[in-house]
Amino acid sequence: MTSKIRIKDIAIKAGVSVGTVDRVLHKRPNVSKEARERVEAVLKEMNYQPNVYASALAYNKKHKFFCLLPKHTSEAYWEEIELGAIKAIEYRRDFQLDMEFIYFDRLNSQSFANAYQECLKKKPSGVILVPSLPDDTRKFTDTLHERNIPFVLLDSYLPELKPLSFFGQDSFQSGCFAAKMLMLIARDEKAIMIMKQTKDGLMASKQQENREVGFRHYMKEHYPLVKILEVNLPLEEKRKVYEDVLEEFFTTHPEVHHCIAVNSKAHIVGEFLLNTNRRNIQILGYDVVHKNAECLRQGSISFLIAQHAFQQGFSSVDTLFRAIVLKKEVPLVNYMPIELLSKENIDFYHRMRI
Amino acid sequence: MTSKIRIKDIAIKAGVSVGTVDRVLHKRPNVSKEARERVEAVLKEMNYQPNVYASALAYNKKHKFFCLLPKHTSEAYWEEIELGAIKAIEYRRDFQLDMEFIYFDRLNSQSFANAYQECLKKKPSGVILVPSLPDDTRKFTDTLHERNIPFVLLDSYLPELKPLSFFGQDSFQSGCFAAKMLMLIARDEKAIMIMKQTKDGLMASKQQENREVGFRHYMKEHYPLVKILEVNLPLEEKRKVYEDVLEEFFTTHPEVHHCIAVNSKAHIVGEFLLNTNRRNIQILGYDVVHKNAECLRQGSISFLIAQHAFQQGFSSVDTLFRAIVLKKEVPLVNYMPIELLSKENIDFYHRMRI
Repeated sequence: MTSKIRIKDIAIKAGVSVGTVDRVLHKRPNVSKEARERVEAVLKEMNYQPNVYASALAYNKKHKFFCLLPKHTSEAYWEEIELGAIKAIEYRRDFQLDMEFIYFDRLNSQSFANAYQECLKKKPSGVILVPSLPDDTRKFTDTLHERNIPFVLLDSYLPELKPLSFFGQDSFQSGCFAAKMLMLIARDEKAIMIMKQTKDGLMASKQQENREVGFRHYMKEHYPLVKILEVNLPLEEKRKVYEDVLEEFFTTHPEVHHCIAVNSKAHIVGEFLLNTNRRNIQILGYDVVHKNAECLRQGSISFLIAQHAFQQGFSSVDTLFRAIVLKKEVPLVNYMPIELLSKENIDFYHRMRI
Repeated sequence: MTSKIRIKDIAIKAGVSVGTVDRVLHKRPNVSKEARERVEAVLKEMNYQPNVYASALAYNKKHKFFCLLPKHTSEAYWEEIELGAIKAIEYRRDFQLDMEFIYFDRLNSQSFANAYQECLKKKPSGVILVPSLPDDTRKFTDTLHERNIPFVLLDSYLPELKPLSFFGQDSFQSGCFAAKMLMLIARDEKAIMIMKQTKDGLMASKQQENREVGFRHYMKEHYPLVKILEVNLPLEEKRKVYEDVLEEFFTTHPEVHHCIAVNSKAHIVGEFLLNTNRRNIQILGYDVVHKNAECLRQGSISFLIAQHAFQQGFSSVDTLFRAIVLKKEVPLVNYMPIELLSKENIDFYHRMRI
């Protein structure tokens, strides 16, 4: 299906020099409008496709990407993103890519400013970014645009920032899907529990907020009579505090047998249920992190919705690579699939596909 | 994370000529055991990773792959596999790959023999193969082994054929998962319908057979009292014949409101239900082909289980490419994910991920 087209043949056909063809191909100046048009017509006619790998390898330039993530503990969504990003760097090891992670405190302007100034000082070729507070994020991305540094957004799609690309789940729709699946197992229950995590009264991420909005939207439309009881497990608290909150909740609400966790910590509830031998309560949660998968296998979590954090990390790096090194066009909005995992299909879940 | 290691540096360190290093790297003969060991020790010490893309491009050899598939109509699983395989060839267009499809009649020895003899005559670099009858398939794969031609199996994993790689779903487990999800919507029903397609009394594929085995296994274990009624829509019949069969079934079985199709033709039932205005019957089917997706959106199909045929086609070609052109090791068994699609999440389904 392919056959090599030589630059020489293009030059002969267009009646120009090899140097002119080369300048057109690499979008360099000093070509007359007429010559450019003649070359472009021949390229089109011959259906010329540049060998992007060969060009990139020949050019042999170093590229350094930076990834700005919220600080996190292990077993979290962010860790999966890191692993995916590292894998992508390894996968493209022939192309002299390098990457550095810089962390910031969410909801803390100074911390984010420090992170992005450190990043700018190191002259990134490309940036992967989880948005912080709107104004802070804006300051950073404006500077990136000024300096012609492409950036990929994770987590929340903010079109006004004009990113090169976005990777994330449609959180609202994912919340609707979660409600549908939870109610298939909750059947005719009168009340369900929603577990949230906040810090100083704020939800930790836009994503979790939007999932809850989607969840409540679906419930209101299809199950308006089902009561939704909230349980809040504040971020960065001790396990004992969580256990006390859960013990009190389930003791005072024996009618509740179904929960949803809109964050990646369904396993906190799952392990509590296993430890206190409550076998008649089922959870739907997010993210295939190890502890969640364990609860799924042991039966305290019925379903997990995958978020493909590993794939998001991998694809973000690969998108920067394709745009910057291979000079390809890349898609702007990339919504992740909304996948349902139970103990029957989890063994076939792929963190990524190449 | 990477830095270029020059062959010259390796030669100096090992105390051999550049030519010797080159011969070791490309596994060519005429190197003394001692020199080979010295070079290999230096490669290991320096953590040398060959630039496989550069080597492959420099070598500039043509490769032709062949894909042996059952004859099929459009809107089928096989068509998705073809599209994926073609995409993979395009994706690797820098590497002079070519591909040809050859078709055979399933369950027909002569037809399969003709197909594989045609393939062998054309001297394939690599083969993608859907197994036919066991003895016929064996004859072909034995010849491929004799001639050192790697092959990838699709559809059924047959380890005794010693393929380079396998892509497909775990059909048994996928049948179990289908049963679990169908019974979440069927709840307390006393009977469900299973739709099958046969030709001359035989199931068209091993996969469909195994899905049914998994489905019945799960039902027997968890819902032993639910009756499973069979409907057979013989392959290659007219739509009118199907409609008559379905009309009779649903008229004589008003108690049935839930069906499973273990093949990719749930839309035959779905469209019948829409056309006859039976809105109280729900189907679970396989494969995200266009007509199935349409029924899902219109509500006659509740769930589809994805089989990732497009990804299977893509990955089969890419595996041959990685093994033959890049000389990389490739994984042997690749089970596809078992994904559930409803109208809430189908818009986020990915035919493939790269």
